[in-house]
Amino acid sequence: MRRLRMGMIGGGPGAFIGPVHRIAAEMDREIELVAGAFSSSAEKSRAAGEAYRIDPSRAYADIATMLAEEAKRADPIDFVAITTPNHMHLPAAKAALEAGFAVICDKPATTTLAQAHELAAIVEKAGKPFALTYTYSGYPLVREARARIAAGALGPIRKVVVEYPQGWLSKPDTGKQAEWRGDPARSGVGGCVADIGVHAFHLAEFITGLQVSEILADLGTVVPGRRVDDDCQILLRFANGARGALLASQISVGERNGLTIRIYGEKAGLRWRQEDPNMLWIYHDDGRSELVQAGDPGLGADAVRASRTPGGHPEGYLEAFANLYRDFARQIRGEEGSLVPGIADGLRGMALIEQSVALSKAGAGWTKFTV
Amino acid sequence: MRRLRMGMIGGGPGAFIGPVHRIAAEMDREIELVAGAFSSSAEKSRAAGEAYRIDPSRAYADIATMLAEEAKRADPIDFVAITTPNHMHLPAAKAALEAGFAVICDKPATTTLAQAHELAAIVEKAGKPFALTYTYSGYPLVREARARIAAGALGPIRKVVVEYPQGWLSKPDTGKQAEWRGDPARSGVGGCVADIGVHAFHLAEFITGLQVSEILADLGTVVPGRRVDDDCQILLRFANGARGALLASQISVGERNGLTIRIYGEKAGLRWRQEDPNMLWIYHDDGRSELVQAGDPGLGADAVRASRTPGGHPEGYLEAFANLYRDFARQIRGEEGSLVPGIADGLRGMALIEQSVALSKAGAGWTKFTV
Amino acid sequence: MRRLRMGMIGGGPGAFIGPVHRIAAEMDREIELVAGAFSSSAEKSRAAGEAYRIDPSRAYADIATMLAEEAKRADPIDFVAITTPNHMHLPAAKAALEAGFAVICDKPATTTLAQAHELAAIVEKAGKPFALTYTYSGYPLVREARARIAAGALGPIRKVVVEYPQGWLSKPDTGKQAEWRGDPARSGVGGCVADIGVHAFHLAEFITGLQVSEILADLGTVVPGRRVDDDCQILLRFANGARGALLASQISVGERNGLTIRIYGEKAGLRWRQEDPNMLWIYHDDGRSELVQAGDPGLGADAVRASRTPGGHPEGYLEAFANLYRDFARQIRGEEGSLVPGIADGLRGMALIEQSVALSKAGAGWTKFTV
Amino acid sequence: MRRLRMGMIGGGPGAFIGPVHRIAAEMDREIELVAGAFSSSAEKSRAAGEAYRIDPSRAYADIATMLAEEAKRADPIDFVAITTPNHMHLPAAKAALEAGFAVICDKPATTTLAQAHELAAIVEKAGKPFALTYTYSGYPLVREARARIAAGALGPIRKVVVEYPQGWLSKPDTGKQAEWRGDPARSGVGGCVADIGVHAFHLAEFITGLQVSEILADLGTVVPGRRVDDDCQILLRFANGARGALLASQISVGERNGLTIRIYGEKAGLRWRQEDPNMLWIYHDDGRSELVQAGDPGLGADAVRASRTPGGHPEGYLEAFANLYRDFARQIRGEEGSLVPGIADGLRGMALIEQSVALSKAGAGWTKFTV
Repeated sequence: MRRLRMGMIGGGPGAFIGPVHRIAAEMDREIELVAGAFSSSAEKSRAAGEAYRIDPSRAYADIATMLAEEAKRADPIDFVAITTPNHMHLPAAKAALEAGFAVICDKPATTTLAQAHELAAIVEKAGKPFALTYTYSGYPLVREARARIAAGALGPIRKVVVEYPQGWLSKPDTGKQAEWRGDPARSGVGGCVADIGVHAFHLAEFITGLQVSEILADLGTVVPGRRVDDDCQILLRFANGARGALLASQISVGERNGLTIRIYGEKAGLRWRQEDPNMLWIYHDDGRSELVQAGDPGLGADAVRASRTPGGHPEGYLEAFANLYRDFARQIRGEEGSLVPGIADGLRGMALIEQSVALSKAGAGWTKFTV
Repeated sequence: MRRLRMGMIGGGPGAFIGPVHRIAAEMDREIELVAGAFSSSAEKSRAAGEAYRIDPSRAYADIATMLAEEAKRADPIDFVAITTPNHMHLPAAKAALEAGFAVICDKPATTTLAQAHELAAIVEKAGKPFALTYTYSGYPLVREARARIAAGALGPIRKVVVEYPQGWLSKPDTGKQAEWRGDPARSGVGGCVADIGVHAFHLAEFITGLQVSEILADLGTVVPGRRVDDDCQILLRFANGARGALLASQISVGERNGLTIRIYGEKAGLRWRQEDPNMLWIYHDDGRSELVQAGDPGLGADAVRASRTPGGHPEGYLEAFANLYRDFARQIRGEEGSLVPGIADGLRGMALIEQSVALSKAGAGWTKFTV
Repeated sequence: MRRLRMGMIGGGPGAFIGPVHRIAAEMDREIELVAGAFSSSAEKSRAAGEAYRIDPSRAYADIATMLAEEAKRADPIDFVAITTPNHMHLPAAKAALEAGFAVICDKPATTTLAQAHELAAIVEKAGKPFALTYTYSGYPLVREARARIAAGALGPIRKVVVEYPQGWLSKPDTGKQAEWRGDPARSGVGGCVADIGVHAFHLAEFITGLQVSEILADLGTVVPGRRVDDDCQILLRFANGARGALLASQISVGERNGLTIRIYGEKAGLRWRQEDPNMLWIYHDDGRSELVQAGDPGLGADAVRASRTPGGHPEGYLEAFANLYRDFARQIRGEEGSLVPGIADGLRGMALIEQSVALSKAGAGWTKFTV
Repeated sequence: MRRLRMGMIGGGPGAFIGPVHRIAAEMDREIELVAGAFSSSAEKSRAAGEAYRIDPSRAYADIATMLAEEAKRADPIDFVAITTPNHMHLPAAKAALEAGFAVICDKPATTTLAQAHELAAIVEKAGKPFALTYTYSGYPLVREARARIAAGALGPIRKVVVEYPQGWLSKPDTGKQAEWRGDPARSGVGGCVADIGVHAFHLAEFITGLQVSEILADLGTVVPGRRVDDDCQILLRFANGARGALLASQISVGERNGLTIRIYGEKAGLRWRQEDPNMLWIYHDDGRSELVQAGDPGLGADAVRASRTPGGHPEGYLEAFANLYRDFARQIRGEEGSLVPGIADGLRGMALIEQSVALSKAGAGWTKFTV
C-alpha cells in the first residue's frame, strides 16, 4: 500500500505550524510531503521546498499552479494540507476541493461563520474528505476519556470546566505569530477565542459527546492597542443541562499552553491536562483517585491505536497531531475508525467565535448557541 | 503574660469545626479553652465539656448562662468563639458583644446581609474586637502572595481565577454537616456560595488587595431535591478593571477541598493551591518559573511570622487556622500586625451571597457589587 | 479524665524541637506542659518558662531540681519530655526514670550503642513507659501503608528504597542547630546517619514490618572540616531476603526534608513522601495507579485515628508529632493501640549508627546487622 | 541537500525498537528508510518491508545480501541502523563497517567487553561514524543540564543519584521483549544492568561530564528462575571524588520507565525525570527552586536545537531519539555539533555490565572501574 502524497499550502520560512504538519503527516509513513505552495512569494516557496528537501520542481509559486501542475502528473498529490493564516483557509480549500483533492486544514475553519457555511457546501458538493486539525483531540488519553464517558463511566455529565491559559500575548504584539493573529483581516473577528478558545470548546464537546446549547460570553481586550480579544470567559450550558465554564486567555503571564479539562458526572470525575498529556485522572465517587497512564493495560482501543510506544515513554504534541493525519489517511483510503474532526466541527467553532464576540459586545445574557 | 481565656459557642458532639477552633486557638499557648455553651442541649454541652477536658462547672447549658456566669468570675473568659451553624451567629455574637466580650466567629457572618449590617452596628457600638475565620487567609504563603502583590511584584493585576471545587455534596444531603447547610433556615439563602464561595471571594480580595466592583452570577442546583445552590460560576470585575472568574462547586465528584487561586499581572503571575499550601508558584514574564516554599529564606515578615517549623516540615490547615487566632489574640492585647478578617469582610461576603443568589435567579447581566 | 502533666528537659531559647514537642503534646488536650528544666542556664530556663507561659515557679534551673520538686507536689508532672542534644538523653532519661517518671525522648536514643543498652536496662527496671519520637511514624498515611502491608496488600516485600535528602548542611556548620550536630561529643559518632539516617531506617522497618539483617555502608564527609558524616549510602538486606537502599544526605543543595520511601512487593508497590504527607501512592501489578489521600473513606483504623480533619484539609508535621504524644498518653493511661516507638527501636537506631560508621571506615562488605 | 538513506538490521514483526528507530530517523527529513534486513526469516523481512512501505526489492533476507546489493546501487544506503538483540550487534556492525557503511546501533554495544574492544578496533579501522543510541541523552533538557554543569552553574559536583525503576519484569519472563533479555546467549551476562543500568550510567556521566572511577555493585535476581539480574544497586565514586548511587530495577511493580537523576554541587542542585522530560529543576543554594521548561527563553543552544515546538507543546521519547539521529546525520555530513554517543561510551557501558556482574558475584568491595 503506497504512501499518500501531500501538497502543503503555507508553511514557508518562519512558520510554526507548517513544519508541525509535515512531521505529523509523515510520522507513520502513511503520507509523504511531495509538493507545496509554501508562500505567496515564489522565492520563499522555493526556499521552503529546499528546506523540506522536496523535488524543487514541486515547490510552486502559488496554489493554482500547484493544483494544475499536480493534476497533470502520473503521481499527483492525494491531498492538500492548509497551514496558512485563517483568511486563506476558504480560498485554498475551495480551490483544492474543486480541483478534486481531499483537504486537511488548520483550525479555525475560516474567518466568518458565513464563510464556514460556504465551505461546508463546497465540501459536501466535492464529496472528498475534509479534516480540521483540532490537535488536542489526537491525544491517546483524550480519546480514552471520550470512550470512557461514552461507555458511561462517569454517569450523566453535570459539570465541565475547560481552561486554556497562555501568556505569550501578555505584551503588545510582536513577531510573525502574534502579528497576524492580532489582525482581524487575517484572523477574523476573534483573537484569543479564535486561536485557542475553539480548541477548548472542541475538546469539551469531543470528550463529553455533548453539544453546547447556550452560552454567556465575556471577552476582553487587556493589552492596550490590541484589536481583538485576548481573554475569554464563556459560561456554558450543554444540551443535557450540564453546566460549564470555558476560560481561555493569552495574557496569563507564565502560562505556556495550559489546556486543561475537568468533567464531573454523577458517578465519577476526570481531569486531563495537555502539558502532562500521558496522565488521565479518574475520581471515583467512593473516594478512590485513579491515575490512568498512556500505555496502561486497561486502555481502550482508541487510546491503544493512538500510541506508538509503551508506557513510560512520553509521547506528546507531535504524536497527537500525527494521529489526526493517520485518521485522515484512513478516510482517504476508505477505512473505518477515524476520529479526526471535520467541517461540522468547523462550523461549531466559527459559531462560537462569532457569537461570543457579538454577545460579549452586546452585554447579552444567556443565549441559545446556534450554528 | 497570661493566656487569654476562650468560651466556645457550638462545637458539641459530632461537630467538625468546633474542635478545629479549639486546636487552633490553643496551638500557640496564647489562648486556652476554659468554658463553653457547646450545644443547645444541656446534656450534650456537658458531654462536650468533658471531651474538651474543661472544668465541668464551665460547660453551660446555654449562651446567656455562660455569659452571665463568666461575667461574675475573677477569671472570666476574654472572648467568645462562635462555631455554630450560620443562623446562630448573629444572636450569639450580639449577646457576647453586648455582654462586653470580644468575638471570633466562623464565616459567613450571618444568614442575611441585613443581619450583617445589624451585626456591624453592634460591633461598632461594642468597641470590642470582632474577627471572622476566613481560614485560608491564615496560610503563610497566602500572606506572602499578598505581600508580594502589595509590593508590586506582579505589576498591575489583570486577571484572577479562583476556584473552589468540592465533591462531598454530589449526592442528596445526608449527615449532620450536609443537612444544616442544605436548610435555608439555618444556612441562609446561599448553599455552595455561602459555604465555600465566600472563602474564594475573600481570598481573591485578600491576596490582590483589590475589591470586586461588578459581578455576573450563574448559580445552579444540580442535585435533585436540594433547596440551595450547589454549583456557582461568578464572573468578576475588580475596581481597577481586572477581569476574573470564581468557580465554586460541591458536586465536583472526587474533589476534596481544592481551593486554588491564580493571579496574573502585567509583570508576573502566581498560583497557590490549598491542598499544597506550602508551595507558591511565581511565573515571571521572562519565562522563569519560581517555586517559593514555606520556610524559604527569601520570605517576607508576614509569612515568616505565620510559620512554626523550618522548610520541608509541612504545616497545614490547623496551623493556618491558628494564625487567625494568634492575630485575634494580638487584637485583644492591643498589639500590631493582625491580618485576621473582620466585620467589613463579613459584610462583603454576605453581599456576595445575597446578590449572586438574586442575580442568578433573575438572569441578570453584569451588576454593580454593593455592600 | 484529667490532662497529663509534662515537664520538659531542653527546649530553651533558640531551640527548634522543644517548641515542636510542646505543640505536639498539647494538640489533643490530653497533655499540658506545666514544668521544665529548659536550659542548663537558670536564667535561660526561666526565660523559656515565661515564653511557654507556665507557672514561673516550675521553670527549674536543672533536671535534678525539677524531678525533686515535682515529686513533692500534689499535682506533679506525669512524665518528662527530653528535647536536648543527644549526649544529654541518657543522663536525663536515667534521672527521670529512676525518679519514677515516664519518659518521651527525642531520637536517637543516646550517643553510643552501649549507652542505649544501659538505657534499655534502666527502662526495663523502671517499668515506666519510654517512647522515642521517630516523628515520621506518626503520619496517618505512614500508618496506613504499614497496615496495608501487614494485611498483605503488597504481597511479600522484595525491594525497599528509602531516601532522606536535605541540603541545609551543604556549607560549613554555622548556627546552633548545625553546630551541636557536628560535634561528636554532643551528637555521637554519627552525623547525617544519626540525625536523619535513623529516621529513614526506622521508617523502613516500621512500614514493612521487616527487620534489616545485613548492611553495607558507605558514609562520607563532603564538607571540608566537618567531623562527622554528612552523606550516607547504606545498602540493606531484610530478614525475608528483600533488597534495599537507604540514601541520606545533608549536602544535597536545595532539598529541604525530602524523606521518601518506595516499597515494592510481589503484587503491588507504594510510595510516600514526607513533603506531601497526605498522599500515598499504591501501584497495582495490573497497571493501575491509585492515589490514597488522608481522609479517604477506605482508610483503616490506624490512619483514621491519626487524622483530625476531613480530606483536603492538609495536616502536617506537627500533627504527626502529636500522634506520637497521643499514643504515649495512651501508654501512660494503660490504653491499647499505641504505635509510638520505644527503646527497642532506639537500640536498632544506635546499632545502625555505630555499625555503619565503623563498617564504612573499615571498607567492609556485607555485614550482619546486630543490636 | 539530499536525505541520507538508511538500511535497518532487525526491526521485524513484533519488534519494539525497530519502528522507534524508523520514526526517529525520519522525523527531521534528513534521513529516510530505504532498505532493511529486518529479520533472519526472509519471509518476515519481506513482511516488515511492506509494513514500512519500502521498495520490496530492498527488503533483504539477510545482512550480507543487503550490504552486497546496496553496494551495487547508484543510490545505496548511507548507513546501517542495528536494532537487533544484543548478540547480533557485533557481527552486524562488523559486516556493515567493513563494507564501508556508517553504523548507528542500539545499546549496549555488544554482549561482552571483549567484543566491545573488538568493535572499537573495527570502528577505528573503518574510519566511519559509529553511534550508540543512549536515547535519554537526546532530550533537550538533559542537554541543558549538561551545558549548565559544564558552565559551572552547580559548582563542583558532590553527589549524583541516578535511578531507573521499571516494573515490567516483576513476573517470570513472557513475551518477545522479556524473553531475549533474560537469555544470556542473546543479552550477555547482564540483565537489568545491561538493559537499563547502562542508560542510567551513561546519563550520569553525560550530564556531569565526570567519569566514574570506582564502583561497588550489588546485583540481584529477584524473580525465581530468571537467569540474569533484575535489580541493581551500584555505589559510585567519580574521578573528582563525587559520591553517587545508581539504582536500577525491573521488578519495581508499578514503575514504568522512571529514569531520574539528581545532581548536587557546591552551589546548586538539579533534578530531571524522564517521564516529565520537559521539566528541569534547578535548586539554588539561596533556597530558590527554579523550574526550567523546554522552550523557555533562557535555554542554551544545545537545548534549543533539540526542540521542534514552542514551550507547552510536549515533546517526548521519539523526539529525543530523533535528536540522536539528527546528530548522527551531522556526523555523516561532516558537520559540527553532534552529541550522539559513540564507541567510547559503548566500552564504558560494557565495562559496567561485566564488572558489576563479576564484583557482585564475588562480594567485592570498592573496585577501580576500568575499561
